[in-house]
Formats: sequence, C-alpha cells, structure tokens
Amino acid sequence: MSDVQTQTRAAAAAARRAGKQLAQLDRSRRAALLRELAAALEDPEHVTAILTANARDLADAERVELAPALRARLGLDPSKLAGLADGLRTLAEMPELLGAVSLRRELDDGLVLERVSCPLGVLGIVFEARPDAVVQITGLALKSGNAVLLKGGSEAKASNRALCELIHSVVREHGLDPACVALLEDRAAFAALLECDDDVDLIIARGSGQFVHQVMDSTKIPVLGHAEGLCHLYLHADAEPERAAAIAVDGKTSYPAACNSIETLLWHADACEAAGACLRALAGRKVELRGDAATRELAPELDIAPVNEADWSTEYGELILSVRRVESLAEALAHIERYGSRHTEAIVCADESVGEQFLAEVDAACVFVNASTRFADGYRFGLGAEVGIATGKLHARGPVGVEGLLSYRWLLRGHGQVASDYGPGKRPFSHRDLP
Amino acid sequence: MSDVQTQTRAAAAAARRAGKQLAQLDRSRRAALLRELAAALEDPEHVTAILTANARDLADAERVELAPALRARLGLDPSKLAGLADGLRTLAEMPELLGAVSLRRELDDGLVLERVSCPLGVLGIVFEARPDAVVQITGLALKSGNAVLLKGGSEAKASNRALCELIHSVVREHGLDPACVALLEDRAAFAALLECDDDVDLIIARGSGQFVHQVMDSTKIPVLGHAEGLCHLYLHADAEPERAAAIAVDGKTSYPAACNSIETLLWHADACEAAGACLRALAGRKVELRGDAATRELAPELDIAPVNEADWSTEYGELILSVRRVESLAEALAHIERYGSRHTEAIVCADESVGEQFLAEVDAACVFVNASTRFADGYRFGLGAEVGIATGKLHARGPVGVEGLLSYRWLLRGHGQVASDYGPGKRPFSHRDLP
Repeated sequence: MSDVQTQTRAAAAAARRAGKQLAQLDRSRRAALLRELAAALEDPEHVTAILTANARDLADAERVELAPALRARLGLDPSKLAGLADGLRTLAEMPELLGAVSLRRELDDGLVLERVSCPLGVLGIVFEARPDAVVQITGLALKSGNAVLLKGGSEAKASNRALCELIHSVVREHGLDPACVALLEDRAAFAALLECDDDVDLIIARGSGQFVHQVMDSTKIPVLGHAEGLCHLYLHADAEPERAAAIAVDGKTSYPAACNSIETLLWHADACEAAGACLRALAGRKVELRGDAATRELAPELDIAPVNEADWSTEYGELILSVRRVESLAEALAHIERYGSRHTEAIVCADESVGEQFLAEVDAACVFVNASTRFADGYRFGLGAEVGIATGKLHARGPVGVEGLLSYRWLLRGHGQVASDYGPGKRPFSHRDLP
Repeated sequence: MSDVQTQTRAAAAAARRAGKQLAQLDRSRRAALLRELAAALEDPEHVTAILTANARDLADAERVELAPALRARLGLDPSKLAGLADGLRTLAEMPELLGAVSLRRELDDGLVLERVSCPLGVLGIVFEARPDAVVQITGLALKSGNAVLLKGGSEAKASNRALCELIHSVVREHGLDPACVALLEDRAAFAALLECDDDVDLIIARGSGQFVHQVMDSTKIPVLGHAEGLCHLYLHADAEPERAAAIAVDGKTSYPAACNSIETLLWHADACEAAGACLRALAGRKVELRGDAATRELAPELDIAPVNEADWSTEYGELILSVRRVESLAEALAHIERYGSRHTEAIVCADESVGEQFLAEVDAACVFVNASTRFADGYRFGLGAEVGIATGKLHARGPVGVEGLLSYRWLLRGHGQVASDYGPGKRPFSHRDLP
C-alpha cells in the first residue's frame, strides 16, 4: 500500500470515529457550532487570512490563464464570506432533521416500533475549484451529523486549506475531533478514498458528466451525482411570447455552465410567435443557435446553423442552443424521454391542463411549468444549501440538502416478545400507528 | 447479441412502456386491481391449476432430493394461497403512497414547489424458490406503480408460470398491458437483465450474501439487498434469565436460515445466570454451540466446542451459534461494530437507560431492546409485505415495502418567473411552507 493510501485510509477511519461524536450532538450544541463557524468567517483576522490565501490561488490562476468563469468561481471577497456565514446561520435555525421520527407504530401491547433518522456516517465529496463549497458542504455535513472528507479543485488549494484550518479551530473549541472534516489535497488521495468502502458511506461527485461516470466506475461506494444535465424548454402552442423569451434567456444565458441550464428548445408548430421571440432574444444575447429546417425557416434573418443528431445529446455548457419544431405535446414528451438526462425539464404554456399533463408525464428530478429551469437548486428550493443535484432515482433526487445526507434506523422496544408467538392462528399484530 | 439478450431487452423495454400505465392508475382502480387479483387466487378453478403446477415442481424436487426446508418453501396449499390473497387485500386498503406530497413550499408569490412521490419505474427482482414471493412482489409492484421483471428459483418454475398467467389474466381484464409483470425463466435472462441499465431502475436481489455481491458486481443498475445477515443478541448484566432464553431460542431456532436469525450471543460477565439459561435452552433445541473459554467454563456439562476467530464473521444459517463473554456494554458494542452486518442487533436488559444507550449507539438497520431479532420483517413491521431487507444505508434501509419502491419528483408551478430576478440585492424568496 502506498503512503497516500495508508494516510487516506487512516483519515477515513478517523473520520468514522469522529463522526460518531457529531451524530450524538444535541440540537442546541449543533446549532451553536454552526453559528460560531459563521461568526469566525466574519472575524476580520480570519477574513484577512482567508483572502490572503485566496489571493495566492488567484495569482496562480492568472499565471495559467484560467478561464474568466472559473476565475470568478475561485475568487473570494468579504461579501462572499458574509453570504456563506448567512448560509450557516440559516442552517443553524432550520428544523433539526436528525433524530426525527418518521413512523411510530405499536405492533402489540408494549412492543413499539419507531423509524428514526440518522446520519449516513462518512461522506466523501469531490467538487470543482470553488472554495465557498468547502463551507457550504461542511455546514450541511455538520447539520446532518456526518463526517466529511473533502477534495476540492486543486486551483483552490490555498483557499481550501485556510478555510479548513478555520473550521478545525472552531470544531476543536467545541471539544470535537477535527478529523470529522478532513481535506484531501490531491487526486491520488481521492482515488485512495474511493477504495475505502468500509469507512465511507457515500461519495458525492460534482463535475462533468464524464468525471462523475469515471468516479462511479471506480468505486464500490454508492455515488450521488448528476451524471448529465441535459435540460429542455418546451414552448406549447399557446405559449405567450414575452414569457417564453424571458424563460429561455434566463435558462440559457444566466449561467451557461450550470447543469440546470437549457441545451435544447422545443417549440410547437403553432407557437411561431413565441419561438421567434425566443430566437431573437437569444441571438441578441450572443447565443449560437442550431436549428432544424423549420426553425431556420422561421427566422432566416438570424442565419441559424443546421442542427445534427449529435446536438440533441450534447450538454454544451456554453452559449449554444439546439432548437427543434415539434407537431404536438406528445412529440415534445417523446423527444425529452429520448434525449433528456432526467435532471430538469420545463414547459411554457397558457392552458393549465397542458401544464398538468407535462407535470404528470415527464420523468425527471425537476419538472417545471412556466418557470426557468435555473430554479432547480437547493438554495432556491429553500433547502438551506445543496451538496449537489442527483439525477438518479434512488435515495435523493434533484437538489440534495440535509435530508439527502440522512438515513434511518428501525428501533423496536419490547419486554421480551418473540416472533414465533405471532402469526396466523396465533397472536395478531395490532399495527396501530401512534402520534 | 444472443436471442436471450434480445428477448430480455425487449421485455424490459415493454415493461418500461407498460409501467407508465400503472403509474397513472388512480387510487380506486389500483385497489380494485389488487382485490381482483386476491379474488382470483381463491377461485377454485385457479387454485386447482396453481396446485397442479406446484405438484409438478414438488415431484421434481423429490427426484433431486431437495432439503426439507427448501421443499417447505416451495410447497403451496389452499391456505397459503388464502394468506396471499389476504396480503393483497391488506395492500389494497393501505393508504396510497404514490402521488403523496411530502413538501409544499411557496418560493414567491405564485411560484409553488411540491415534492411528489412517484414510482421508480421498472424493477428487476431475483428471489429464491418460493412461489408465494411472485404474488407478494407483484402486489408491492402494483401498489407502488412499478413494472416488474421476476426471476424466481428454477425449482418453482411451473408454479411461478401458473401464478404469472393468473396475474396476466387479471391485469388484462383491467385493460393494462401484461408486460408490466414479466417472468424471466432462466439465469441467462437474468444476466441479460443486469445489462439493461436504460430500462431497469432497481435490482432487488434476495439470496445468499455471496450471490447478492455477485449481482452487485455485475451491473451498473443500483442493487438493493441484504448482502449479509450477521445479527447479535447481547445479554446485559441485568438480563432476566427467562426473557433472555426465550429471545435467544426464538432468534436462533424459529427459522435458522432467515437473515434476521442470530449468529452470535454476547453475554456480560455479570449475566452468568441469564447466559446459562440461554445455553441450556438452546442446547435443548439441538443448537450446536461454539464458545470462548468463559462460555465453556460456564456450562461444562454442555460440552461446548471452542469458537475460533472465523466464527464471529460466519452467517451460519443453521442451528449453530457462537457465544462470547464481554466485560461491558462497550465491549459488546465494539464486537457488534466490528463483526455485525448492520442488519439487526438486539439487547436483553432490565435497565431502560442501558437499552436507550444500545439504541443510540448501534449502527444497524434494526436495533431492538428486549425483543427477538426475528421481528425484523416487513409483514411484522406492518408494511403490508416486503420485497427484501436492505443492509445498505442509502434509499431504503431494513425491511423494504411500498415506500422503498418509490422515488419523488420536484414539481414547480409558476407564471413566468426567472431565476436571475432573485438573490442577494434582488427579489427575496419567501420559502414559506404551505399545508
């Protein structure tokens, strides 16, 4: 076993032990921990230390000519830190989901079953070069009672380290083992973590679809992540043009690299006006359009490039949009079923019953009527924060907040009952749900 | 692609299409379907056809000298069929979990988010040679709106086929596509199913730990199953002897092949009397005991064999029990943490606070105080039935009933809202939970 493997295994085992303390914290101590972490992030001395580290990362980014969008994610400033502190305080105030009883059932006199939520245990999370994620993920982990091993993008190395030092000092002041929040500093360490199936309960992978698939293929640990974000916006026959254009522009241009941005616009053959309004608005925002013949005919002045089959399956992640005319809602649904990634799908329509049909029939984590796909986000959904968006159907689906980091246990309290006394012709179960 | 692969893929794709109908059934039609299936199972003509098929399976079992326990599982009779019909009627009456709204939140005026349960889609289930499982699993699938592909033990081939024919006739009478419940008739078909990751959402594997691991290793589809069932019973210092003996005997002898049977008995050094009572009662039931030195000293008259390290990790599945003395609750917890399979763990104690500590600290799907581990079962928990017991922590944990076969979708209804209008310095979210 290499040194990195040995060290990573030790870190995972230490996280397992440290996580047990986290799981046992009572509500008020857990909230205090989150509030003090928030306060520490606004303490001028700490702010200076973090921004100094961040400046080093930014200088390195300058040298390697990091793309502007990535540079923007990497940068921290006092207002970003204040925003993170606010997020932690919101988490502190949120209802305690840990230990919640989701079922209480009397099986017989004096034999009572409860289903009680508990942490998953130890999380391993890999994410892009955005240091704010260190704080957000740590907040969700502490709130849910899970230990966490973090592997952030290497461009944010100094910032991540400074933030983790701060987190460790606050955790230590609470008498907790800082091993509950560990930073992995290189890819080899993360690769080694993927082998720790005894001590890691869940891997959350953020990044490109290709990367998430790679992670899934190289571990026995369950992986939560959005493998792809190929989202559609469909304009029904009665779509109102201004509304359609506003939603299309927001969905494509407000953050093209986000997984909840749209990649394809579908428009009903009777929605020419709405489709035209969308195409003009998008072209005005410098979106490269790729259309089928009908789309190109609709707006010849825009010189729309022809679309090809591969476009329907492409998550551009930039200012490119494929566009197709469909003859009916059914054809739109079939296109989404075939090419969608089950992430987020939206319709613009006036007729409510059409919206309800779309909601009923689309199989995706998020299905929206007359709203931008960009709302598919833990913060916007009011989950406090999110560790990522899941496109699988098991466990958590869509934006994953605190609830997605919890499991449950079945607790049974009796006074000597045995199973062979019950059953057909013997003692019956009462199966009475209790308040 | 082989013929079996082609056929299996076609069956999975047909199940996907047929499942969409199931998902859209309203509550009353779904209940009617289950009740009519129940009635069909009690119709004398059908009973005769099923029992005739079962007799063929039993005759084959005779020829290959199937073990008596397996033979008992394989056999059907009118009362077993009546029990299955009762189970279906119970499922029909159970609250509808499909379409349940678990969260309703206003994000802003006229922008309302809902989290609504939905079927997973298509299930693939492999199970042992017990034809009753065909009916139980079909009932759970219909109740949860999922299509299902069933692969039962080959010893039950004729019985499974007869039951599926009956199910198909009832499903057809309801105007539904019988492809929603498909029977796979050999191992090659099941192996081909494991490759259908586009059309199968969940594999549920029942069988030996080794088999479940094999299934997990050979598919990209998520697998739910209990890889192992290594359950412990711990007798605390104050354990009452009669209670301890009753729970130990039930846990070991009522169904030794069951995953929720105990494999190891731990006893506190001060619980000599309770431990002695257990050992004598178990020996009287022909349980082969394997003990550490302290255990063998405690009951020299029983000629207890010495235990070895491998025993602590062995799921015997038969009338063998390993026994160890511990010096404290902490030592018992450490033993369980090290050797347990996170399935079901139980304590016998008089002091309630000790029971609560055990409940708080044991990380397992089911944790019981003063009750037999054999209660860990979907029917006994009042879930209507179970498709299996899950020992993973993600999605469903412990006995898996209807709820474990559901996912959810986030539905958002707006009137043109876009995400870039919200955020710091812009429009705030209201995040107001609605009733």
